[in-house]
Amino acid sequence: MQAYVVCYDVTKDKIRERIAKTLKEYGDRIQYSVFEISLKNQNELDILCNRLKNIADEDTKIGFYRLCANCRQDSRTLDGERLAEMPAVVIL
Amino acid sequence: MQAYVVCYDVTKDKIRERIAKTLKEYGDRIQYSVFEISLKNQNELDILCNRLKNIADEDTKIGFYRLCANCRQDSRTLDGERLAEMPAVVIL
Repeated sequence: MQAYVVCYDVTKDKIRERIAKTLKEYGDRIQYSVFEISLKNQNELDILCNRLKNIADEDTKIGFYRLCANCRQDSRTLDGERLAEMPAVVIL
Repeated sequence: MQAYVVCYDVTKDKIRERIAKTLKEYGDRIQYSVFEISLKNQNELDILCNRLKNIADEDTKIGFYRLCANCRQDSRTLDGERLAEMPAVVIL
């Protein structure tokens, strides 16, 4: 599995809601415009990006930051709590 | 250097502005509530968190996601552009 933190800036509410709805299929909402998601591989990232491109408009900004196990280990909230505690393996 | 992507949810404008102003000392604003920053070490992260705790209120959420060189390499925007291209070494 490949873990990503996804952050987005979207102007229009309708578009923001559709983007959030799509990302919910892949992981958890952490903040208003931030998701932590798990993808099987690069191909699934490409598929997700194509889906989001069909929703996005010219004002939409989306960043996908990869998080390896070590980086997840070192990620934290302001209060020192762990972040990105994705399951290493997703049981289907 | 240690690279982080920092995402925050802040309700009050004044607090959000002060948090952004503080983060600007460490890196670049990427989105409305997202910065990419470089820190020398864990100690500098602790110092930064203490500074931000003095600004934050109970509604403030801040996440610090660590980005190693490999993760930065695999991070991208919706349009496939590179993200987190921090300089490996900061020339003082």
